[in-house]
Amino acid sequence: MAANLLTREERDAMLPGLTGWTMVEGRDAIHKSYVFADFVAAFGWMAKVAIVAEKHDHHPEWFNVYKTVEVTLSTHDAGGLTKLDVTLAQEMDRLASG
Amino acid sequence: MAANLLTREERDAMLPGLTGWTMVEGRDAIHKSYVFADFVAAFGWMAKVAIVAEKHDHHPEWFNVYKTVEVTLSTHDAGGLTKLDVTLAQEMDRLASG
Repeated sequence: MAANLLTREERDAMLPGLTGWTMVEGRDAIHKSYVFADFVAAFGWMAKVAIVAEKHDHHPEWFNVYKTVEVTLSTHDAGGLTKLDVTLAQEMDRLASG
Repeated sequence: MAANLLTREERDAMLPGLTGWTMVEGRDAIHKSYVFADFVAAFGWMAKVAIVAEKHDHHPEWFNVYKTVEVTLSTHDAGGLTKLDVTLAQEMDRLASG
């Protein structure tokens, strides 16, 4: 699967469309905090994301405490953001709103 | 459920029995890094722990990236370590070895 770093044009086209995602300081990565109703809702979402992530063979860095999940996405092999991150971010948002 | 801070005697009796768990610097909490074979193994373990944690109504702070899970346990309501943390640590170890 292609995992080239996003070009400047791709960044400008794709990243503004990711609601609530922000650039990580000092790193070519994006971050979002998700807050759910409770732990069951938070972990239920994580379980869905885990299956999608494994399917894409692209995994998040994520921290969970109770109903909050802090997610950082970057493509380690590429050394920064690729389309894989944009796709996973979109899937995460879709699963959180479903 | 009782959630009193561990006494000095309880700490001395219980904490040394938790293999691989260490005290967190500057905080009354314990930490352990688990490394699994791959993401499926890591997240599969997290799913088992999640069910146990919810059953006990006591949840971990945990960070996952690929096959690694970093866990911190403390009882927020009590402001430090309680028997709930010892129990959850034991359950986590049991589920990791099963």
